[in-house]
This record gives sequence, C-alpha cells and structure tokens, in this order.
Amino acid sequence: MRGTKGKEVKRLFHSFNPDSPIVGYGVCKVVDSKHSGFKKGDLVWGVTKWEEYSVITLTDSLFKIEHTDVPLSYYTGLLGMPGMTAYAGFYEVGAPKKGDYVFVSSAFGAVGQLVGQLAKLMGCYVVGSAGSKEKVEILKNKFGFDGAFNYKEEQNLNATLKRFFPEGIDIYFDNVGGDTLEAALLNMRRRGRIVVAGMLSQYDLDEPQGIKNLMNIIFKQIKIEAFIVFDYYDKYPKFLETVVPYIKEGKITYMEDIAKGIENAPEALEALFTGRSAGKQVILVAHD
Amino acid sequence: MRGTKGKEVKRLFHSFNPDSPIVGYGVCKVVDSKHSGFKKGDLVWGVTKWEEYSVITLTDSLFKIEHTDVPLSYYTGLLGMPGMTAYAGFYEVGAPKKGDYVFVSSAFGAVGQLVGQLAKLMGCYVVGSAGSKEKVEILKNKFGFDGAFNYKEEQNLNATLKRFFPEGIDIYFDNVGGDTLEAALLNMRRRGRIVVAGMLSQYDLDEPQGIKNLMNIIFKQIKIEAFIVFDYYDKYPKFLETVVPYIKEGKITYMEDIAKGIENAPEALEALFTGRSAGKQVILVAHD
Repeated sequence: MRGTKGKEVKRLFHSFNPDSPIVGYGVCKVVDSKHSGFKKGDLVWGVTKWEEYSVITLTDSLFKIEHTDVPLSYYTGLLGMPGMTAYAGFYEVGAPKKGDYVFVSSAFGAVGQLVGQLAKLMGCYVVGSAGSKEKVEILKNKFGFDGAFNYKEEQNLNATLKRFFPEGIDIYFDNVGGDTLEAALLNMRRRGRIVVAGMLSQYDLDEPQGIKNLMNIIFKQIKIEAFIVFDYYDKYPKFLETVVPYIKEGKITYMEDIAKGIENAPEALEALFTGRSAGKQVILVAHD
Repeated sequence: MRGTKGKEVKRLFHSFNPDSPIVGYGVCKVVDSKHSGFKKGDLVWGVTKWEEYSVITLTDSLFKIEHTDVPLSYYTGLLGMPGMTAYAGFYEVGAPKKGDYVFVSSAFGAVGQLVGQLAKLMGCYVVGSAGSKEKVEILKNKFGFDGAFNYKEEQNLNATLKRFFPEGIDIYFDNVGGDTLEAALLNMRRRGRIVVAGMLSQYDLDEPQGIKNLMNIIFKQIKIEAFIVFDYYDKYPKFLETVVPYIKEGKITYMEDIAKGIENAPEALEALFTGRSAGKQVILVAHD
C-alpha cells in the first residue's frame, strides 16, 4: 500500500467496483489451475484481488505456501512481501555485523518491526522512530528495541540521534527520507550503510525536499542503496529458513489487526492512514 | 589538492614557510632509511613535502616504485593516488560491465581522464563534462570519450544528459555533486551506480545545495557510494598490472604540465584553480 497515501487512497475508494477490484497481497487456496506450478488445493500468497474468487494470470509473484504450521495470515506480512523486504534490505543490502548500531525509521511498520527484531537477533543495538507514544512503548517493550522515540515530539532530530547513538550509526534503514535522512547523514559512522526502502515523508509533497547533508557520504565513505524486494525473491527459501524457526521459538513477535469480512475493508484501509491500525492490517475475506 | 579550493588555497600560500612546508604527493629517492621496508637508493612515491630533502615519518602511504620504465612523474598522478582513485572507484565501486553507459563529471581532471579511458578500454560508452571548450575537445579527440560537453554552456543539464544518454546512465562517476548530480539522478537507469569521488561544486558554498531528486534512487533502485582511495590500496599491485601495460602499448594517454623549480610552485598551484593547467600539474623540484 506504500505510495498510496492521502489523495491516492481516496482515489482508490472511489474507483472501487466489482469489475476492477483493488489488487493487494493476499493468501488464497487454488480451486482450479492451468499452471504447472500450482494445483488444486495449493495454498498460495502473492498479488491477489479483494474478492472471494479470483482469476490470477500474473503468477510470477505468486508463492506456494510450504509451512502451514504458522498462521496463514502471516503470509500477507511477516512471511510475505513486507517480511522479505525487511530481510533483503537488512541482510543483503545492509550487510550487518554483530554489534552494529542500527537505526530504523517508521519502525512500527510491518517492515520496520522485523528489521529491528532481526537486528536484535544478530546482536546489534537498535533504535526506532515512530509517530506516537503508544508505538514507541510497543517498540521498546514488545519488540525489544534498545530505544525508540516519537519523531513528532523531537525538536532537533540531529540532537535526538546523537543522544541515542553517541558512537554514531552503522546502518540506517530508511523508510521515510526527508528530515530524518538529513539527521541520519550527520550521525553515520565511517563506511556506514543507508538502506533505502521508502521515503514516506516525500510522497505527498508537490516538490521534494532537498537533502543538504549529502557531503557527509564523502567525509565518511557512506553507501546509500535503494532496492525493491522483487530483485531478492531468489532468497525467499533462505528467508523462511531463518524466520520460521524464530517465529516458532517465540523469538519474533508480530502484531496483526484482522478485520473480518470484505464489507469492513474500506474502514480498515482508512485506518492505515490515520495511525489507528494496531499492527499489520489484514482483511479476512473468507475462511478455507 | 581536492578540498582546498578558493579561500583554502590562499590560506596555503600565506602559510608557506620553510619550517612547515606544504605536504603533497611526490616522487623521491631514499638517501637514508631506518625503515626495514625502504633502503638507500629506492624510488618511492607517496605523501612527501615541497622541499628538496625531507624526513618522512609517515610511511604508511609510501610506495616503493617497481616499474621504472615509465616516466617517474607519472607516480604523482596516473600511477599514483589519482590513478588508484580512478581505478578503485570505477572497477571496485562502480562494478562496470561491457556496454555500460558511463558519465564522468570533471572529466578533464587526473581522475576523470583515467576513468573515461578505463571505461572505453572495457567497452563502455563514455561521456564527460568539463569547464572549457578546449578541455571538451581534448576529451573527445585525445582521450577517446564518445562525447563531452562544457557544463558552463548548457542551459539545462537534464536535457543535456538526455541528449547524450537517450537510454540512460549505468554509472555516474561524480566529482562535482550539486546540479550535475541532480541531473544525473533523473537520468540513471535501473540499478545504476553513482560513484562519489568528490563534490567540487559544494566545497566553496557556505550552505550546501539541497539535492531534490533523491526519490529517483527508489524508483530505479540506485546505489550511491562514496569512497576514499586509502581503503583500496591493497589493490595497488593489480592496478599496476592493468594500467602499466596499457601505458606501454599507448592505449592510455596522459597529459602533464611540469613546472621546473620549486620557485615556480606557487604559480603552478594557482593554475589549478584558474583552469590554466594543461594536464596534471607537477613541480619538478630536483632531478635524480
């Protein structure tokens, strides 16, 4: 749903009609298949539609579900695209080492939550930013972040980051861009990595904000790298090998907010943008 | 001399005195040594001083010269720090492939010249920017660039790059930052690499220019990476293996502007900043 904030989400509501349902990530059971990779009865996740029965012709981003001993809804988040985004960005792009200082913005999001927990499991020090006091508390008490702050309450993000990272930042997992990126650039350590998964703060602006602190990448030999998860789907089996055991051992926590019935979908979608959602928003269209 | 433009160069002149000579890259013959790695008679290059006889205590960036069948002055440029900067930035950071579209800013500089020639030898398409008509002609006719332009004469750098790179840019070797980086971001191809060796346009500004087009790194999964050559000196033998044969075969061209006598050093230094220098500026302090 990234990139569909504000104006765009209203457009989505207005365009909603049964002939062209909204497309999104979902979990389905195959009822019939002409594709050799999928057969009747298979459980799959990937890009589906907001409807009870769908004809899916774009099968490239459809994955067969092998591990069914975890909640199937997890494949819309933790074990699906957002989870793979966190994994690919943190491990493949961020190249973390034990003891690294890691900062995650929009840390309460489905991606940020997992980045923080993967970083902790690797022995990193992790601080996250979020947009409410409640989210900050959950990051610290439930997801095990070493620190968290509400960016809306900070006057000077540079000073905030200096407080949380007196030694500087090795990896900044950027979901927001803008002022937070500006402050992070001032606080990176030598050969630090800025992993760019999104720039949420910039999507609604008519003109993007200019980033003034880029010279710091020279002073400190920094790498800034943006990526899309689709380039890393070959790592999906390795991702499951890593994350599924962590889930079963209770070492990874995950929060979902499940709305029952497609009739409740518009309200649930709206909740994403008002900050009311208490975890990954899932719509339960139909049981098995 | 990077980072010492404008005000800084004046400071250097005023501070010049025999008790604290200017430090720079030079070629010397060892007349006495207490270091096991260097003996009397060895030729070395590295950080030396602007004087006839020097006591050098910082030996970490001092290299013994093995290939003496090329002009020794080359070790201040093409075969020294600027050459290694070009080599490390282009090959190690840029990860070039045959056929890549390569753009080099400040292409007439010692680093840029070599980046362009290495790119051509690899089978890339190369365009460079420079600050005068004469430099543009030399880039095209002497250094073999596929195209070159005088950035001072272009009204719209975005349109200029679109003209030279209708298919987009795979590698942008950035020596200048600012407007040129802004325009390059708009013209990068998917998974393009921006290798940042310097941001010459920003060193004299009181407040750095904000870069507005950073969102493009997300749209096109771009990597921006800054580096310093010191992190790559382990590749120096490999660099010599690559570049020395090219020099002997005449496949790499190199221009030097040699001022004879240390008394001519201030004028030669000034020439760097007025654009009068016709190639790598070298001061010949003393013959063997």
